This record gives sequence, C-alpha cells and structure tokens, in this order.
Amino acid sequence: MTTTIISGGLVITAADETRADVLVEDGKVAALASPGSACARGWSADRTIDATGKYVIPGGVDAHTHFELPFGGTSSSDTFETGTRAAAWGGTTTVVDFAVQSRGRALREGLDAWHAKAEGKCAIDYAFHMILSDVNDGSLKELDLLVEEGVTSFKLFMAYPGVFYSDDGQILRAMQRSAGNGGLIMMHAENGIAIDVLVEQALAAGRTDPRYHGEVRKALLEAEATHRAIQLARVAGSPLYVVHVSAEEAVAELVQARDKGLPVFGETCPQYLFLSTDNLAEPDFEGAKYVCSTPLRPREHQAALWRGLRTDDLQVVSTDHCPFCFSGQKELGRGDFSKIPNGLPGVENRMDLLHQAVVDGHISRRRWIEIACAAPARMFGLAPHKGSITPGGDADIVVYDPHVTQTLSAETHHMNVDYSAYEGKRVTGQVETVLSRGEVVIDRGRFTGRAGHGRYVPRATCQYLT
Amino acid sequence: MTTTIISGGLVITAADETRADVLVEDGKVAALASPGSACARGWSADRTIDATGKYVIPGGVDAHTHFELPFGGTSSSDTFETGTRAAAWGGTTTVVDFAVQSRGRALREGLDAWHAKAEGKCAIDYAFHMILSDVNDGSLKELDLLVEEGVTSFKLFMAYPGVFYSDDGQILRAMQRSAGNGGLIMMHAENGIAIDVLVEQALAAGRTDPRYHGEVRKALLEAEATHRAIQLARVAGSPLYVVHVSAEEAVAELVQARDKGLPVFGETCPQYLFLSTDNLAEPDFEGAKYVCSTPLRPREHQAALWRGLRTDDLQVVSTDHCPFCFSGQKELGRGDFSKIPNGLPGVENRMDLLHQAVVDGHISRRRWIEIACAAPARMFGLAPHKGSITPGGDADIVVYDPHVTQTLSAETHHMNVDYSAYEGKRVTGQVETVLSRGEVVIDRGRFTGRAGHGRYVPRATCQYLT
Amino acid sequence: MTTTIISGGLVITAADETRADVLVEDGKVAALASPGSACARGWSADRTIDATGKYVIPGGVDAHTHFELPFGGTSSSDTFETGTRAAAWGGTTTVVDFAVQSRGRALREGLDAWHAKAEGKCAIDYAFHMILSDVNDGSLKELDLLVEEGVTSFKLFMAYPGVFYSDDGQILRAMQRSAGNGGLIMMHAENGIAIDVLVEQALAAGRTDPRYHGEVRKALLEAEATHRAIQLARVAGSPLYVVHVSAEEAVAELVQARDKGLPVFGETCPQYLFLSTDNLAEPDFEGAKYVCSTPLRPREHQAALWRGLRTDDLQVVSTDHCPFCFSGQKELGRGDFSKIPNGLPGVENRMDLLHQAVVDGHISRRRWIEIACAAPARMFGLAPHKGSITPGGDADIVVYDPHVTQTLSAETHHMNVDYSAYEGKRVTGQVETVLSRGEVVIDRGRFTGRAGHGRYVPRATCQYLT
Amino acid sequence: MTTTIISGGLVITAADETRADVLVEDGKVAALASPGSACARGWSADRTIDATGKYVIPGGVDAHTHFELPFGGTSSSDTFETGTRAAAWGGTTTVVDFAVQSRGRALREGLDAWHAKAEGKCAIDYAFHMILSDVNDGSLKELDLLVEEGVTSFKLFMAYPGVFYSDDGQILRAMQRSAGNGGLIMMHAENGIAIDVLVEQALAAGRTDPRYHGEVRKALLEAEATHRAIQLARVAGSPLYVVHVSAEEAVAELVQARDKGLPVFGETCPQYLFLSTDNLAEPDFEGAKYVCSTPLRPREHQAALWRGLRTDDLQVVSTDHCPFCFSGQKELGRGDFSKIPNGLPGVENRMDLLHQAVVDGHISRRRWIEIACAAPARMFGLAPHKGSITPGGDADIVVYDPHVTQTLSAETHHMNVDYSAYEGKRVTGQVETVLSRGEVVIDRGRFTGRAGHGRYVPRATCQYLT
Repeated sequence: MTTTIISGGLVITAADETRADVLVEDGKVAALASPGSACARGWSADRTIDATGKYVIPGGVDAHTHFELPFGGTSSSDTFETGTRAAAWGGTTTVVDFAVQSRGRALREGLDAWHAKAEGKCAIDYAFHMILSDVNDGSLKELDLLVEEGVTSFKLFMAYPGVFYSDDGQILRAMQRSAGNGGLIMMHAENGIAIDVLVEQALAAGRTDPRYHGEVRKALLEAEATHRAIQLARVAGSPLYVVHVSAEEAVAELVQARDKGLPVFGETCPQYLFLSTDNLAEPDFEGAKYVCSTPLRPREHQAALWRGLRTDDLQVVSTDHCPFCFSGQKELGRGDFSKIPNGLPGVENRMDLLHQAVVDGHISRRRWIEIACAAPARMFGLAPHKGSITPGGDADIVVYDPHVTQTLSAETHHMNVDYSAYEGKRVTGQVETVLSRGEVVIDRGRFTGRAGHGRYVPRATCQYLT
Repeated sequence: MTTTIISGGLVITAADETRADVLVEDGKVAALASPGSACARGWSADRTIDATGKYVIPGGVDAHTHFELPFGGTSSSDTFETGTRAAAWGGTTTVVDFAVQSRGRALREGLDAWHAKAEGKCAIDYAFHMILSDVNDGSLKELDLLVEEGVTSFKLFMAYPGVFYSDDGQILRAMQRSAGNGGLIMMHAENGIAIDVLVEQALAAGRTDPRYHGEVRKALLEAEATHRAIQLARVAGSPLYVVHVSAEEAVAELVQARDKGLPVFGETCPQYLFLSTDNLAEPDFEGAKYVCSTPLRPREHQAALWRGLRTDDLQVVSTDHCPFCFSGQKELGRGDFSKIPNGLPGVENRMDLLHQAVVDGHISRRRWIEIACAAPARMFGLAPHKGSITPGGDADIVVYDPHVTQTLSAETHHMNVDYSAYEGKRVTGQVETVLSRGEVVIDRGRFTGRAGHGRYVPRATCQYLT
Repeated sequence: MTTTIISGGLVITAADETRADVLVEDGKVAALASPGSACARGWSADRTIDATGKYVIPGGVDAHTHFELPFGGTSSSDTFETGTRAAAWGGTTTVVDFAVQSRGRALREGLDAWHAKAEGKCAIDYAFHMILSDVNDGSLKELDLLVEEGVTSFKLFMAYPGVFYSDDGQILRAMQRSAGNGGLIMMHAENGIAIDVLVEQALAAGRTDPRYHGEVRKALLEAEATHRAIQLARVAGSPLYVVHVSAEEAVAELVQARDKGLPVFGETCPQYLFLSTDNLAEPDFEGAKYVCSTPLRPREHQAALWRGLRTDDLQVVSTDHCPFCFSGQKELGRGDFSKIPNGLPGVENRMDLLHQAVVDGHISRRRWIEIACAAPARMFGLAPHKGSITPGGDADIVVYDPHVTQTLSAETHHMNVDYSAYEGKRVTGQVETVLSRGEVVIDRGRFTGRAGHGRYVPRATCQYLT
Repeated sequence: MTTTIISGGLVITAADETRADVLVEDGKVAALASPGSACARGWSADRTIDATGKYVIPGGVDAHTHFELPFGGTSSSDTFETGTRAAAWGGTTTVVDFAVQSRGRALREGLDAWHAKAEGKCAIDYAFHMILSDVNDGSLKELDLLVEEGVTSFKLFMAYPGVFYSDDGQILRAMQRSAGNGGLIMMHAENGIAIDVLVEQALAAGRTDPRYHGEVRKALLEAEATHRAIQLARVAGSPLYVVHVSAEEAVAELVQARDKGLPVFGETCPQYLFLSTDNLAEPDFEGAKYVCSTPLRPREHQAALWRGLRTDDLQVVSTDHCPFCFSGQKELGRGDFSKIPNGLPGVENRMDLLHQAVVDGHISRRRWIEIACAAPARMFGLAPHKGSITPGGDADIVVYDPHVTQTLSAETHHMNVDYSAYEGKRVTGQVETVLSRGEVVIDRGRFTGRAGHGRYVPRATCQYLT
C-alpha cells in the first residue's frame, strides 16, 4: 500500500490545533510529527501532499443519509455510488445510511436489502442504522442480534402514521430493549397524528402550496414529540438521540433534559441552519425543493440552533441527505403539498457550510470538527477509527483550503439531483484533497476514487456515554 | 537536551484515546506514532520510558493556587518551592498562582512581589493571575498593560469586605475594562456583606465552632453573588469565570446562564466533590482543617457538581490550594471560627482524586483530562503549549498507572502542611513519571527535578471563547 | 317559600371574611347585613339559624363525580340518590357529574341516559359534563348543541386505550371545536398507551398486587401527557382543564404553562393531598381500596400539590368520587391489579378535609372557599348562582362549625360504599346545617332533604377566562 | 350621620359581581340586598344614589404615594391636601404614603414629621409606610414599636447610594427584624451602585438627555436587585414586596420565586403599563416628564407586566405618585438627566387607566378591583375595613360609569402639577360619585369633601400571608 506524507498543514481535531506533518501507512495514520523535526525529516513516502496554509482535518462523518430510499412512490435520487462519491467531493469519508424494515417483515430482510444496494458501490466507507417500522416481539429480539453485528442504532418515527409510525408503547418497548443491549434509539420527533389532522384541514381549505407543509408541521408539535420521547426514554432508562432538530422549542426541550443530566442527544442539519420558511414560500412551486420533515422554520429559530451547537445541547450536524429531483419527483406534489417527497440534497455541502459557520463566527474550528467528525463518530461507535487524526486511526483525511471561495450550485455539484438547495450561495473554504483509508479519492478537483473502495464498517455501541 | 521516548502507553487527551509512542525532543513533543510502526521503530532517544499498561496524559494544569499568601495574620504554608514540588509529585506541571494587589498600591508592585517569590524556586512552570484589591482609575489602566505582558486574568472578590472586597461598581468597571482588553474576570462569588452580618450574629450567640463557618456562608448567598456577577458581566459585555463553585444553587445559576449562551464559566475544586460539612463538624476543632471559602457544603450538593462537570456547565477543576498548618495556623481560630485562616491543601491530590472519579464512574477518562489539563490551559491562554499531548506542545507529560492503589496521607504527601484533607482515603491510580518540558521531575517515587527548573509562562488571553 | 335568617356567623367567601347576618328568601340570598344593624334587626323570617361562633360558607361545588358509572364490568356504588345525599351531608350543594358517550353512539344518547339516572333522585343541584369516547365528525357537531343547552365541558382521556381513549388527532379536533364554541376540554392526562405496556409487563412478571397499579402508572407518564395536552391546546388555541393532577412533575408542567400566561387549569383531589402509595401498599389486598387513576403518589408529591393550590397553579379541588365496594367490586382485581375498578369514595369528605388543610396551615380560609366553591363554580359556568354568598345568588349555604372534631369512618358516613378511604382520620370542623336553595337539607345531624329536591342546572361557558 | 342607599348598580368585588343595593349607615356598609327584594324595599335613607347602569366598587387603595417628599433639592408638588383631593377625584379613598427617616435620625422623628404634614389636611383616609434610610441597632429596635402602632411596612432602597441606599447587610438585618415582628419589607430593587457608574460614564460621554436615564438604569440591573432581594429575604425568612416593578426580567425573577412558593410580592404602576421609553425620548426635554425610577422600559416589556397581573405574579398596582412640575422642577435636570427629580403624577388616573385595561381585555373586572383595592388593602393590613364592599366595612365606595369617555389632561386634572403623563389619552369609564366612610366627597363632577375629613388609619400586619 502506498505511504503518504501530508506536510505543513494545521491539523485540527476536536481538541487541538497543531502544526504537524502526518504520516500515512497501510491506510492508517502512522504518526504525527512537528514539521521540521528530525523525526519528520526522516520520513519518506510514496507521495507527499503539501498542506502548507491548509487545514488537515478528519474526513467528515455524515450520520444521516438516505440513498435509494423508497418514499412516497418514488426513490431518493442518489444511489450509494453517486451519493458516496458526492460525499467524498464534499470532504465526507464515512456515511451512516438507514436500512429500512418493511412492515410485517424482518429487520434482517431490510438490512440485507440495504447491504445489497451498497456493496461494491461506495466510494467511501459506510455503515447502517436500522429503521424500525414494525416493533413487535420478533423485531425486538432481532435488535440484539443486529447490535452484535454492528448495527447499533435504531430509528423510530413519531410521524408518518401508517408508514413508519410507532406508537408510544412500541417506542417504549424498543427503548427498553436498547437500554439492555446498548443500542441507541434515534427519534424522528414530530406528533404525526396531530399533524395529519392539520394536513387534512389545510388541504380541505385549499392550502396546497409547499409553504403549507411548513405551517402544518408546527414547531410546537416537534417540541411536544421531543419532550415525549425524552420522557419515554427516562421511563425506559435508555439514552436518546433526536434527529434533525429544527425548532427553537425543541432545542429548549433538549436543553432542559441535558440540564438534568439525562443522556439525551440532538442532531441538526445544515438546512435548518442556513435555510428557512422563506425558501418554502418561493413561488412557482420552487418551495417544493425545500420540503423536508421536520420542516424548515422561520429564520428566527436559527439562533437557538447555533446556540445549541455552541453549548453542546446539540452534538451532531448531519445532512439527512434525501434528494429528489425537482423535475418528476418533487413535482408529484403539485396541488397537494402532502404528496411532495420529503427530503433535500446536502451530503456534499455539509463540511463547507459548517466551515462557513466558522468564518461567520458561529462556531470555532475545533467545534466544526467536533460536530461534523468526532462527535458523530463517537455517538455511533466509529471511534477510534473515524472522526479524528490520531496514530492508529483510519487515514480518512481532508486537506481543506480555508481561503478559497466557491459558489454552491447544481451546475457544479456531484449529487444526482437537478437542483441545489443552496444555489448561488458563496462560501469560503473548499476541499482540496481527500484520503479514504490512505487512498486519495479527491485530488484537487478530480475524483480519483472508485466505486467499491468504500467498505462496510460494523459499529460499536455508542461511545458518547462513557 | 535529552530526547525521550514514551512507549506503549494509552495517550489520552480531551478528545482521543490512542495507543501511541511519544517522542520528546528539546522539551517538546516531537511526534506521536503508532507503536510498532516503521516510524516509531526508527526512533532513537537518550531515554525510553516504558508506559505499557499505563496512561500517558498531559501534565495537569492547576489554575488556582495560593503559595505564600498572607492571609489573616499568617501566610499559606507552601512556598513556591515546596508547593510546585508537591504539584509535580501529583502530576501537575503548571500552576497559575495569584499575585495580590495591596490596597492603595499599584498592580505592578504586587506582581513584582510575586515574581520575586517565585523566581528560581519552582519545580514546574508557573503563571500568574492578579487579584484586584483596589479598583480605581489607576489600577484599571494597569489592566491593559498586564494583559499585554501575559497576566490576562483578574480576580475580584464579592466577599471579604475591608480586605479584598470590591463593590458592584468596581466590579462593573473592571469587567468593562476586561471586555475591552481581552482579560478574564475571575470571581469569588459570595455576598460577603450579608455573610459578615451572619458571622457577627453567630459569634454573638456563642456559635464559634468551625462548623458555623459553613452555616453562615449560606449556599443562597453564594448563588446570589453568582447571579449578580453574571448580570454585571452581561451589562459589561464581558465573559466571567466563577472560582470554587460549591453550592448546588450556584451551579443552577451557571446552568441558566449557559442555557442562554452567555460566556460564563465555572470552576469547582476536589474538596467540594469529595468532602462535606460532615468534615467541618469534626470534633476537637478538627473541623478547622476544612475551613475554606466558599465553604464545604452538605453532601447532597455533590451530585450537582458532578453533573455540572459532565454537562460542561462547570469547565475546570482547580485546587484553590491554600494550606495552613493545623498547629499554629488553623488554631488561630479556636473560639472564633472567623479567625481560622481560610484554605485547604490539595495541589498534590487533584489528578489522583479526579482519576478516582473516573474509577467511580462520575466522568470519562477524556473528561478527566479535559477538566484537569486541557480546559484550564485553554481558559487561561496556555494552549497550545500546555494541556494536551500534541506535536509542538511542551512535553509536560505524566505516565499514570491506573491500577495501583495508594492511601492519601500527611505522612506521605509532599505539601508543606501538617495534615491531609483526605487523610486515609484510598484511591486507585498514581503518578509514575512526570516530565516537565521534557525533563523527568518525578521518576517512580523519586523527585528528580529542581527548584528553578520551572519557568514563568506569560499567557495569551482566554482561548475558550473562540 | 320559607324565609330564613342565618345570624351572627362569619361569612367567608373567596374574597372576604365578614361578620354578617344573611337573609334568605325564595331560595336565594336576599341580603347580607351587619349583625345588630337597624337593617338586620328589622328582618323577620320563618326560621332563624344561629350561627354565632360558626362559619357561614357557600355550599361546596364538587365538579367531578361519577355516580352509577359503569366501569370494568361493574358500576360505581353510589346512585344519584345516595351520592347527592352524601354530598349534602358533607356540605356540598352542587355536583357536576359525567355523562358518558358510548363508542359508536351519539352524545345525545349518553346525555339522555344520565338525565334519566338523575332526574327526581337528587338531594342537591346537579349538572353534567360529557365524556367523549368517540370523537368523529358527528360527535364534534353535537358539541355545539350541547354547549347551547348547558353542557359546556367535555372530558377526554389520554388513558384507557380501547375504552375512553382518544388519540392526539381526536383530541386536537375536539379542542379546535371547543375553541370555537366556548366549551372547556377536561383532560385525563396519562399516557395510557405506554402505561398499558408496563401493566402487561408487570402482570407477566407476577407483580399483581394493588401497589403495582401505582408503580406502572408512572409520574413521568402523567407529566408527559399533561405536557402534550397543553401543547395540543396551544395548537388549537383552546383553554384546558386537567383533572385529578397527582404528580409533582405534572404540577410542574402546569406551572410552566401558567408562567407563559396560557389558559391552562388544574384540579387535584383530596386523596392526592392526604393519601399516598403507602395506602396502596396496605397488605391483604386492602391497597385495592386506594386504586384510582391517576394513582396515589409517594407522600413527597403532596408538597407540590399544596404549593400549587396556594400559588393558583391548581385552581380546583374536586373529589373524582367514584366508589366501588371493597367486597364484591374491588375484589374483582384480586390477583390482577388491572382488574380492580378504579375509583375512591370522597364526595362527603371534601369540605372537611380541606378545612383540615386550613387548620394545618396549608391554605387560608378564603382559599378554602375559593378552591372548593367559587373557583369550580366559575370554571364551569355556575356563577353567580353558585359558589359564593351574595345577594341574588342561590341560597346554597353551609353553617360550618370550625371547632368540633369528628372521626371519618365508613361506620358513620353516608356514601353507599363499605369502606372509607380515610377510616379513623380525625379532623377538626364539621358541617352543622346545609341549605340548598333555601331549603334546609342537613339540620344538625339530620337529613331533612329529599330525593328530587335537587334540580338540573344548565351551565354557562367557562367564566374563569374573563 | 347621614344614611345612604346606593341602588341598582353592579357591585363588583375581587370575587363577585352582583346586582345589589347597598345601605350605608354610620360611615359603614350596613347591608347589601337584592334590588327589589322586600328587604331592600324596606330601607329608607337620607340620600339615595341611583347607580343603575353603573358599577359600584370599593374605593381605590393606592399603596404608594409621595406627597410633599423632599427629593433632589426640591419637593414633590402635591401636598397631602391637594394630593388626597386628586385621589378622591380619581376614585381612590385610601392612600399609604411614605414617611421618611432622615440619616442619623430616629424613625419616630420622621414619622412625626409626616403626621404633621398630613393631619387635618386629607380629603380621604391615609396611612404610612416608613422609609428606612439608616438601618442600625437603634432604628431596628424602633421597627417593633412602629409595627405595634400601625406602621407595618418598611421601605428599603438598593438604589440611591448616599441618600436612601442600604447595603445588603442592612437589608438582611431589617428583614430579619421584620420576620420577627410581622413587618413587611418593601424594596426599591435596582442596583444603584452599578447604575451610578453608568450614570457617570453617560454624563462624561455627553449623553445628558432624559432618555439616557432609561438607558443607564438597565433592566438587567433591576432584575439583579430583585433577585438579590429575594435571596436575602429567603435567608432572613421574611416576606418581601417589590415596589414599582417595570422590567420583564424583574417579573421573571418574581415568577421564579413564586413558583417556589416563596412569600414574594410585586407591585407595578400605570406608567409602566401605559408608557414607555418612547416617552422618555420625547424631544425638547419633554422626556423629563417621564423620568422616574425604576425607569420606563421599551414597550415590549408591557406584555410581561400584564401577564404578571393576570397570573398573580404581580399583586398590586399602585401609582408611585411623586409629581414634580415640568417648569421649575423637572427643569433642574436640563443638561444632566441625573438631576431631574424622579417621579410622575398619577394618583388621580390609576382607577381609570386600570378600567381601560378591562376595556382593552388585559384583565377582568374582578381583577381590576383586586389589584387596585382588595389586594393592596390586604397586603398592607387594611382589611376588612378597606378594599371591598361588605357589611361592616368602611363605606369607601365609588359609583363608576363604565360607558362614558374622558380625555386625560393637565387642563382638567386636580393634581398640583403642570402636566399630565397621559395628556390627551382617551379612556372609557369615569368616576361619578365617591363616598369616603359614607360621606360623599365627589358628587358628579363636584368635590364635596373637605381637608381634614380623611383620618389616619393604623394598619394591621400583612394579611396576604394567611
């Protein structure tokens, strides 16, 4: 295997910012050394990457993607091949996607199906969470098996009645089980039963445009479900991870829980930090591009999300990448917002947008790496291999140019979707080189990886609790 | 200068736990490498320390010591020589002591006096905070100068009227000034004006035993002052660091402030985590050994402190090391608790006690290093030299044996004080070897350092805010 | 009609304590006058009641009774005849009972059935709330009609899946409707879906004794449902009245809501104020006597309930009187706590127990009258006829002896149930004389009323909101 | 003495709204009777006031006035004669004014001085609080004596260093003393020490206009002092009454305290409910008319005050009436806002403005009477004589026309001050007739009272705690 030296950059981890050369051997970080030290001078390698003036950061860990997800009569438009390649372009070197249990079927069957979709296709490493659509005695027993083989987190939905929805009894049972086997329950926290009433009323009243998607999925109903999930987790004695937190009131519930010392965690996504209901209200059905659930919120909510990220009341930023083309897919919901496939593209944009947050003063550089790399890795049992740059860890490394500016656009992005949620947005900073386990997969504007390089990574249980 | 290899240990920083060999050159960390890697195998050094089965951790940073502090007609019993040597024994390689401005005198004069006390005496590196006893136009101007020369934090007292006390107007002025020059205000938060009323009443009523020290310095009056300091800092637009937080109610004030995203920080000390008013009530005046301010609290308060450390509402554990011998010093307060010199020894015990907290399950290993090394270093502008193990940083490194047990006792400790606050307490874990800038100062039970090895370290401004 | 003078007592209302003579004519309060005034001296009446040294208070309004309620295969043991007579004995002159909609049937049908049960049987005045068991388009329309004819409050259940349970969508719809028609939603707030999981697990584990009823119906699950109901009411823009609040954590939810100024109200019951899980744990299945839902809580919860009553975060004390004989009824649940009929007797004890709370210093005399008479009357649209002593109001008046002591016991009580929940409890204070619309129905230890004296009272909408 | 019948009105108290005739004999309420009842028809009297279509309400109790107060080198412009007459015009029949202890002098001396000012001058009844300017062993002992003779409340200042200011130790001592003797501490809660720093800085920077008065007296510094006073009261075990609460953040402190069940009370004033910093910013020094402390706040704070009044987190609305003429008095502060005498006229406007709040939907009619009459009477030991309409109580009664509109103006008001704080404001509702202890003092637009009719009323201790 080739050896690589990355020299002269500023190595940033969740804890430290260090001028150091990095030596990569056998796909792993072999050593870090002071530039110019005898040790570093003594190194030789097949390849040297000059990172002078650049950041050397861990590859991003995106803990929430949906590639090839069947939803609303169509499927998300990125395959594991296109999606992981786009991730690599954006400096992300690990994704955790969601395998789906079908109602009435075994978890195993769903997991196998997702393995089949991903195997041999991925440009970067990948792992799986499991969506529980049907909590019953059988599926509960399967949880133990899945934890043992490295699928250690399970997503439940308080929304989408009739599809993914679990009632509070099913949620409680799943939480009790995971309290026993070390699994982590991930929750889509929206009161879907109440929301569906509001959806029906809105449609009956002729309020069919995309922006009504945002109005009916009320912030209070996200906060309510968040609170409920927290209380159920307390009853079960289990930890809880709330996905895609978007509402200020939901953050407040997490804050309250964490003030009590409860093992409750929250994730938000770039779309909630950078977009708003203003986008949902774009005319000519353009708002459909921004339809996702939880929905975008009024701009005023963003301050609470940034504050939560700073105070560690939110621990992780993932993308919930779930792209549907405007043409032919989003359009399924013309005249009925409830038929718009839910989801946004973003796996390629996350690291850049969060670096922009550093530039804008929302977070520090270390916190950028923590929320985008280190925390998701630890949260989902990927440390010490992923999420940091440390001897013995996987050489998933990004050389990041913090000075160059770029314009986000569907014209230039690599996700398989016909629009960008951030079309025209200028950001400062860009990925220059990406190594996945020591292999250069992005090389200064060129994709040098390949489908099948990425490996499935079985995960340990949550490492954030110890 | 000698080079050193520390091999085979588990390197623990605030972010990572890594099996790595560490190469030390010129007093700095030159490199970390995977054990057995070609890189590591290629190293040679004057000395190799086998850390197999041990932790390799950053040297502790104790941000709150009082060596040779005149107080109540006597002086704290550790000199910079004895105190820093004891610190080294306990795995602490940097202390930040408090220079004191005398009333009516310049800051400069106080700082010079403390430099004179410390220079050439210290076994480990040291820096200074400055105590402001007299906030006025003159001393406010001096703040800017001190910040520029590396004294970047200033302690004010809401307690001790007539001695160190500043009124709210003086506090506000000092905060405004530090908001401008980057200085960090450290606050002794107790309502001393109200407390002194209670002291007088207690003594008049014949309640003179040491335990009344704890009763009159009420938790509510610590919480009140904490709240007040926070509000004044908000008015001034400045950050705030509250020293020696001991009361659950005071933690609650910090929690509230942090939930709002305010730059408010809190420190607690081992005595509040491990001791209680039970100790203050020990008979035969033995309680005097535990007299310090803020006082020890009932045992029930400890849970809030531990929770605050876990949720990052408390960021730092320092010792407030301020020893007075029982014989001849503490005894000054026989018959009048208000005359007992305030303070406890602890600089030698902090790293061990906090490791015990890891063993007891209160905190994780990474959090141990964060609260004892990394956070105080960043809080007080000592990064990247102190507080972590990273290429280019000072080689302040401790090889820590997590398995051996020891018994804390005045018979075996190295602090210049005739009692231990933790006499007889058995803890698991012990310092084995300590390097200060690459020099071995503790070598398996032997002090191999020397007075004068330790250097004064000018500090940058607070690095915790960015 | 006879005229009556009640002379020389201390007239207590929610606002005032006044020495006054009261003149009753035509079943109404005609006048209040200063004792000894020319005005009072000029009065003549058929009957004069000497209330010297006594309190003259409004008759109690018990807004939560269940007479002849079918539940769990049996029926509550008090008929409207026995129940209202017992109420009169205890100083209560108005009850609001719950008519029940059967699943799949019209509200009207249920209401008619309850009218039939009550008509011609009652010793005191009565009104009806309506239990919604089946929220659908049809029953929602009926709500408007019922409000118009004086049934202005509607109870929903978040507990009892398959029986009374409504899901969050049904609750939201009912709240929206009542927001429009002035109806008040009353909520049984327990997460019954989650509780049923815990019930099943407890029984499966052999935990079948009555005390497990208290353990599975967790305080957190009452608090959760309370929070959820509040959020749904916010979404609907409706007020909310939470029945039988028992858990400290549920009170906290109400406190939070009221701090925001939301129109959210809470009721507690004497059993939660005076009994505890200690009673549920009584041996030999005696605990079954205390099985009700929400369940009794550990004694520590009582302080929060008393505080809530003092701070007006709880507005009403009702009984939730729902008696089942120990013999033959409670016994249905031997070996399976889930089969114990839920409910306690209490309609006769409420005024006395709350007077005891005055004696014990929990509440003031005026607050006693407010929570037991004035607030329930206003809450449920019975003012100005009920709940106070004021010219023009119904002469529902109790002469109460605050000095005499009595012992509560099944031997002496008048409720049709074979045990007392307060057996042997000594309390200070006792009803002496009770007038219902000017008629003496209790006369110093004698029942002088009759079945059929009591009239149905159609109610206005909630008067607590204006 | 003349007897009076007030017939046909709607009698409103804190608890009830009743159509009733009121019979007044010997200056007291003799009876209330249903209009048209035999009882009422049998009455005869010297005078009958037809209140048909009107409200019959208790005379207002203004618990916070400053007549003839020396302040800032001048004196408030209303004497006890002009001030109490204006109060009568506005439907207020009792005032509690503040006698002032001078520094270094006895309380007795100050109280005597105030008695001398008031005696024989007042149109309505009056009582005194006492301002403590000098808390020491002597004045503390005097507190007990004053309580015994009916001066049962004591005001302390956390503002105005060098004038009225007490330090936290003095406050604590006074609270301890009042905890023992039943006195109620009233607190001016602003951190005057910090504010004076900001005043000095503002003036030094040339910010001398009246609006800077509002800017330097920051809401956070009112909230801080409120919190501090609450904590000191907790330490002392005493109740607390916070005067003139104006800031949302201060209300929040009261809410928190009351949620804990603490005996902490709050007063606000019409100026904070109806005026704002917009007024302070009026050009041409007109803002000086609105200079008072605590200062007017931005309009956004008003919602919290109204909410607090609705939720009983604020219990009383007083005026803090302290008028200074614009010409010659307010003008003393041209060019230096700190020299503007602090205070606003308002004793005549309170009842009308609060009725306007009823019209505007902020509060109910009963709550109007509670916060303006009943609560201040009970808070300051004036019940059962004042604050309600009940047999045996003083016949301080207002016939209020709720339908007529009027325009507030200095041209028509009766306060001895050359401007109105509400100039040009139209309000609905107006006083028609006012009785003070049975004497008509305002008769449809005519003052029929006289200086000297008003009597000094010794007060019981706080009746709000029982």
